[in-house]
Amino acid sequence: MDAEKTCFVPRGPLLARGVSRLLASHGMVTVEELVPSRGLRVDVMALGTKGEIWVVECKSSRTDFLSDHKWQGYLNWCDRFFWAVDTDFPTELLPDETGLIIADPYGGEILRMGPEHKLVPARRKQLVQKFAITAARRLHSLRDPDMQLACS
Amino acid sequence: MDAEKTCFVPRGPLLARGVSRLLASHGMVTVEELVPSRGLRVDVMALGTKGEIWVVECKSSRTDFLSDHKWQGYLNWCDRFFWAVDTDFPTELLPDETGLIIADPYGGEILRMGPEHKLVPARRKQLVQKFAITAARRLHSLRDPDMQLACS
Repeated sequence: MDAEKTCFVPRGPLLARGVSRLLASHGMVTVEELVPSRGLRVDVMALGTKGEIWVVECKSSRTDFLSDHKWQGYLNWCDRFFWAVDTDFPTELLPDETGLIIADPYGGEILRMGPEHKLVPARRKQLVQKFAITAARRLHSLRDPDMQLACS
Repeated sequence: MDAEKTCFVPRGPLLARGVSRLLASHGMVTVEELVPSRGLRVDVMALGTKGEIWVVECKSSRTDFLSDHKWQGYLNWCDRFFWAVDTDFPTELLPDETGLIIADPYGGEILRMGPEHKLVPARRKQLVQKFAITAARRLHSLRDPDMQLACS
């Protein structure tokens, strides 16, 4: 049974929450729904203290995975790539050469480390800056919600 | 009269709010109370789309300015340095070779551009990363306030 049919809230963002908690416990910071390049939007981008960048795509079901035709494009925007799925997901569908996180809304565990393909310095620089701008802009909107009005 | 004595809320953070709105209108993102290095804490650090970094120190009164013995240390952590003060501040106290923003809690105006002293690439890289980590960690705390408990 596709678990999405019995669930009233989208499960992708809940998996992303658990993934972010997991990665925070590994000393990384995360931003959800980050756009590394026009037309691409990654579920979770994580940044480590040494500038390492991981991308995690959260898949709530087989259908969700099979309908994703963009994921290989994400490999060029991270040092390591992971899938995050829940315990019901048929993990045999997932390519071996990718990382695997089993998650729920409250946390998760890294079952298989994504192989490392180091970003070139120029792209890492571009990504860290994009990450900084995205995080700071969202933080600003939350801490000063009247700002949009004031700046418009 | 020292305006601080008649005010029930700290004015520095309110100036910082106005400064952040101003800089957002210039296309920059900001983080308040950022620690670039142990023992230093800048009121507002701003990051531009080309990676340029500005520091803005908010001074609510003459006393507040005169008691700041650290500001020259901030010059090594930005491309441009600014003071932000309100309209009552005696601006003749401020060194000519620094930038000047007149602000209130709702916005501000750049009266004098801080002269540019470009950061070396290694320090810029370090600062953009620190900026990213600080912003993302605070954003995470706000969007998932139960996280601390979950990760502890």
